[in-house]
Amino acid sequence: MIVVMKADAAEADVEAACAHVRALGLVPHVSRGLQRTVIGVIGAAGERPQIHSLEGFRSVERLTEVSRPYKLVAREAHPEGSLVAVGGVEVGGREIALMAGPCAVESRDQIERAAEAVAAAGGRILRGGLFKPRTSPYSFAGLGERGLEFLRRAADRHGLAVVTEVLTPEQVPLVEAFADLLQVGARNMQNYALLEAVGRASRPVLLKRGLAARLEELLLAAERIALAGNPNVILCERGIRTYETATRNTLDVTAVPALKELSHLPVVVDPSHATGRRSLVGAAACAAVAAGADGLLIEVHPDPARALSDGAQSLDFSELAALVPRLVAHAVVEGRTLAPDRSRLDAATWLR
Amino acid sequence: MIVVMKADAAEADVEAACAHVRALGLVPHVSRGLQRTVIGVIGAAGERPQIHSLEGFRSVERLTEVSRPYKLVAREAHPEGSLVAVGGVEVGGREIALMAGPCAVESRDQIERAAEAVAAAGGRILRGGLFKPRTSPYSFAGLGERGLEFLRRAADRHGLAVVTEVLTPEQVPLVEAFADLLQVGARNMQNYALLEAVGRASRPVLLKRGLAARLEELLLAAERIALAGNPNVILCERGIRTYETATRNTLDVTAVPALKELSHLPVVVDPSHATGRRSLVGAAACAAVAAGADGLLIEVHPDPARALSDGAQSLDFSELAALVPRLVAHAVVEGRTLAPDRSRLDAATWLR
Amino acid sequence: MIVVMKADAAEADVEAACAHVRALGLVPHVSRGLQRTVIGVIGAAGERPQIHSLEGFRSVERLTEVSRPYKLVAREAHPEGSLVAVGGVEVGGREIALMAGPCAVESRDQIERAAEAVAAAGGRILRGGLFKPRTSPYSFAGLGERGLEFLRRAADRHGLAVVTEVLTPEQVPLVEAFADLLQVGARNMQNYALLEAVGRASRPVLLKRGLAARLEELLLAAERIALAGNPNVILCERGIRTYETATRNTLDVTAVPALKELSHLPVVVDPSHATGRRSLVGAAACAAVAAGADGLLIEVHPDPARALSDGAQSLDFSELAALVPRLVAHAVVEGRTLAPDRSRLDAATWLR
Amino acid sequence: MIVVMKADAAEADVEAACAHVRALGLVPHVSRGLQRTVIGVIGAAGERPQIHSLEGFRSVERLTEVSRPYKLVAREAHPEGSLVAVGGVEVGGREIALMAGPCAVESRDQIERAAEAVAAAGGRILRGGLFKPRTSPYSFAGLGERGLEFLRRAADRHGLAVVTEVLTPEQVPLVEAFADLLQVGARNMQNYALLEAVGRASRPVLLKRGLAARLEELLLAAERIALAGNPNVILCERGIRTYETATRNTLDVTAVPALKELSHLPVVVDPSHATGRRSLVGAAACAAVAAGADGLLIEVHPDPARALSDGAQSLDFSELAALVPRLVAHAVVEGRTLAPDRSRLDAATWLR
Repeated sequence: MIVVMKADAAEADVEAACAHVRALGLVPHVSRGLQRTVIGVIGAAGERPQIHSLEGFRSVERLTEVSRPYKLVAREAHPEGSLVAVGGVEVGGREIALMAGPCAVESRDQIERAAEAVAAAGGRILRGGLFKPRTSPYSFAGLGERGLEFLRRAADRHGLAVVTEVLTPEQVPLVEAFADLLQVGARNMQNYALLEAVGRASRPVLLKRGLAARLEELLLAAERIALAGNPNVILCERGIRTYETATRNTLDVTAVPALKELSHLPVVVDPSHATGRRSLVGAAACAAVAAGADGLLIEVHPDPARALSDGAQSLDFSELAALVPRLVAHAVVEGRTLAPDRSRLDAATWLR
Repeated sequence: MIVVMKADAAEADVEAACAHVRALGLVPHVSRGLQRTVIGVIGAAGERPQIHSLEGFRSVERLTEVSRPYKLVAREAHPEGSLVAVGGVEVGGREIALMAGPCAVESRDQIERAAEAVAAAGGRILRGGLFKPRTSPYSFAGLGERGLEFLRRAADRHGLAVVTEVLTPEQVPLVEAFADLLQVGARNMQNYALLEAVGRASRPVLLKRGLAARLEELLLAAERIALAGNPNVILCERGIRTYETATRNTLDVTAVPALKELSHLPVVVDPSHATGRRSLVGAAACAAVAAGADGLLIEVHPDPARALSDGAQSLDFSELAALVPRLVAHAVVEGRTLAPDRSRLDAATWLR
Repeated sequence: MIVVMKADAAEADVEAACAHVRALGLVPHVSRGLQRTVIGVIGAAGERPQIHSLEGFRSVERLTEVSRPYKLVAREAHPEGSLVAVGGVEVGGREIALMAGPCAVESRDQIERAAEAVAAAGGRILRGGLFKPRTSPYSFAGLGERGLEFLRRAADRHGLAVVTEVLTPEQVPLVEAFADLLQVGARNMQNYALLEAVGRASRPVLLKRGLAARLEELLLAAERIALAGNPNVILCERGIRTYETATRNTLDVTAVPALKELSHLPVVVDPSHATGRRSLVGAAACAAVAAGADGLLIEVHPDPARALSDGAQSLDFSELAALVPRLVAHAVVEGRTLAPDRSRLDAATWLR
Repeated sequence: MIVVMKADAAEADVEAACAHVRALGLVPHVSRGLQRTVIGVIGAAGERPQIHSLEGFRSVERLTEVSRPYKLVAREAHPEGSLVAVGGVEVGGREIALMAGPCAVESRDQIERAAEAVAAAGGRILRGGLFKPRTSPYSFAGLGERGLEFLRRAADRHGLAVVTEVLTPEQVPLVEAFADLLQVGARNMQNYALLEAVGRASRPVLLKRGLAARLEELLLAAERIALAGNPNVILCERGIRTYETATRNTLDVTAVPALKELSHLPVVVDPSHATGRRSLVGAAACAAVAAGADGLLIEVHPDPARALSDGAQSLDFSELAALVPRLVAHAVVEGRTLAPDRSRLDAATWLR
């Protein structure tokens, strides 16, 4: 922590700030520049919340954080990237994990068909929502519990792992029984009761970035899960809210390498929510792979025109099948694999 | 709902879109302009989520919502403003409700002193957090349950009502037993389980706008509370996240009149979180009153320099006492009252 | 300038950074914390742009500016607020300057009627655009030169000063001959050739904040004008671009007190562009006065429904006349005046 | 144009709006839904700016644009992509154009070394600023005119074309004499005098997206250049301003495919300004290629630690050389070429 004094701070003001620092058991280290005096605070300032009240001192210009506020998820704590096992799939390693499926599980038949198409395209993890957090209370809210079984069976039949969203702490035990990966949605990134509940769960967690979350806040949310006991967190960039209205959100693609510098956790990208438009999903997914993403979360639907939610951003099966070889080839360029079981999808074929 | 076709849409494309509309039990109404054809959708499109999949049609440029997606909280449904009773205070009427207190209840003594100062300044509702949603898991998280009693007693002793934040559905019965007004914080504006829990509560709700929430999304969150059975919702503008870094958030002061056009619910402003800086709180509070706010939520602390949270944005007691007459005078200009029991604070005195 | 080293920076890395600092003629001052080492840079770092390349050093986490990059416009350089004379009106003093008029001068008759109404309402400065920077090249671009004379004559007939926008350096001499205050629009806030041209002009400058400009950037643009020789700059907050779509822009009302802390320059507010909606202009204007604005720039038009530009955000004459007493009363609360020549508009009348 | 009436609009209100439409020579087409009436406006509404004043009518909820406001640059007007010739390089075709060089030309030697490295890496166009628009008036502002000759000679010696920024209309003839491509910077995207000047120039234009510009606004700026007579415009995404502070700007990578849907103009990406951090430039550049960019604009410097500007985001020569094969391989995946003269850089080599 560094305390920047105002240009007109008097000696007594500097001393008052130092006294406040000392009173908290920390050590001030004064450095006088030509225009401003700054005070370095030595010691565990992070454990002394009262230090922030210095910002209210009339002679203090501002406080600047020097240390990072997260520890467990920091790259510094764990220089090599973490591997997170999801069912039989390892996320964060050489393989880029392809996760796909419908926004919402709508029926046994729909998820069965989706699972088949996802597996055929080389996907490894089946997605599908049962409890849908919809902005409007009048929108379709998901099948709930009975859909979980449809989802699990469809996945099992096609050798896929399962990711699905959990909305409340109470749902965790139920969802854990059916899913391999628990998704915390963007709206819940700072729902601390939920973070703590998944932090006590036995399954890994897919943590989506909030709509207006800074990378540091995303990492602090991950830290909370890790601190509660679950180190198996996968971060997910899914577009942020900006002033631009041409796309649903703005894909912050460089968040991928930036997060990987800051943290050892795997980072995946959801190009469907990031763009909101089917015609842009492919380009966004390729960009994510090229930028170093460890996985993709793509919405597909047997018949997007009849989807009960997110039809506008869902690929149909043939679009997914057509996209995968392009993704595979970009993955190969990055020294990685994607959909590795499908030998006919290799880059050589694509590039020929 | 209006469907805007692309400029190059053929007759068959228009017909396909119309067929999709009809298949959902709705009526298409085609209007051909010089450059584009648009299709008006007549009927309850809001109850047909599949309508949105038209956005995925290759010949469709975009969909435009015509109706408002919320009903219960819309001004149209209730042209006069609602009054929400909080303890003995009526919010939304002629009096502008002054709510103040510390960010967090830290001790029996601290909240007692705060209650005394708030009452002396003309405040009507005492605030104080017990369960603090902190971005960092290492920050002070509040006293929890035992603090509720301190808060209630301090308020009672000084004739104040109580507002405090509730973080989870489970906490609702407990907090309801102690508080007159249940606060849903900005991070939880789209925590639907919590919205539904407070929607079943017997106390009114103070709903804070999410950090990146559009007004429509705030109103849809309020709609969810109302739909669950609790029509007594007070909206709170508390600053939004923008690119500007000079203030903690950006106070969207015109959200006050804009919300009041759209909805009949009372709207209050939190100038402390909106600015994050003690020196700006006064100006922000006055601006809110001048813009038509129905209440203010201001952080005060007996000793901001020792506050365990938000010290930088907390006023001390003398600052609060000095601000109130200025607020009263602006209220009078707007034909309203503030701190009405304190006759010596009237505008005549201030303006003399 | 402070250099924050990465947590894993070795002694040699710190030394390399110090060597870079010294090579630029500056003095490094090393401070070692528990987790990070920081280097204070002593000397005129602002004159050594190469210092920024430290951000590219692999062991450097980031650089933090300690000094403010502007000097002439800083409050520190001039603790009392500046007064800027515009025709016979002093902006920045006790009187809040009311500037009003149409978005664009459309005809001799239109501006004549507007001037009459502005003067009758207590306005002091007449606005009206001749050279309109329109986003679309197909929009009405203004009357150009011949309209300047209409504007000047209308103003003179009613005892008003004139403010109008200047779009290019070449227009400065022409506009200077007719106007008392040269407006630099939001789109041109970083058009440096224009800033330098108005910096050499003999008239004061109204500098509008760019759509996505930070306060520091606005002040640096003002600094450039001052550095070119013209210290008479009035800053104008006119709404910033955010994710919110309910209003045209988001009025950053606390920018007013924040700018006044940082700078001695007067700050005015344009509630018309900030909101884009006639029904919100009044509330925005009152909020601006309550927050400490030194002036208001309001769009009015004899017949907004026939306006060639910005009709949706223009008040008609009766709306302006009705708003002024409310503004006057808020001004009085703040210890100021507005429209002082109009004794019947005083707060006493309004408040009675 | 569609006029959405308020839910409580009476028949007379609808008629008043229709009358306004008719008075402008346009035809209203009324469509009545269950909740709202909408009026389609048939005719060339874009040429009747007064239509917008309907937004100020009390019974009008809002106006919705149906047609696109730009014509010349619209994809609809020219379904195939445009090719823009820059010196001997064709931008917008199969080859992805690599443009690189220092932020600013600092000396004859520096630009000579940069040109050599850029050519060796397979670059086709040399960049280098002479007139630098710096936020602070105290920053290095470029060598100006004499540097143009250094830049041209260095480029010629290595078979490169030249792109450089032009800041004012007056500089256009001078810069045109030396450069193959005239850059309009982000700060000047809405400097209309400059847009018109480059619109009359004989060289193609590289138009950078403004910091807070919507895609539509970028296209309207391009339209203005085309309308002034110069159809040879290349659009450049260079990061937008958002709330995120971990990177200098946020690269909006899906702007590339979104712009290409809307317009026939080539789209290039500047990964250096988009990220502001050397360590992220490579990932951003790869993502841009994968998303369909027609070119890249990358900052390189012989010695970033001594750069007079933008050192933190400049690659050194070995970093550039190492990046190119990766870019080439991603280009090949997209069915394109990059640095095609350098056969040793082909994807086969890279992928082996």
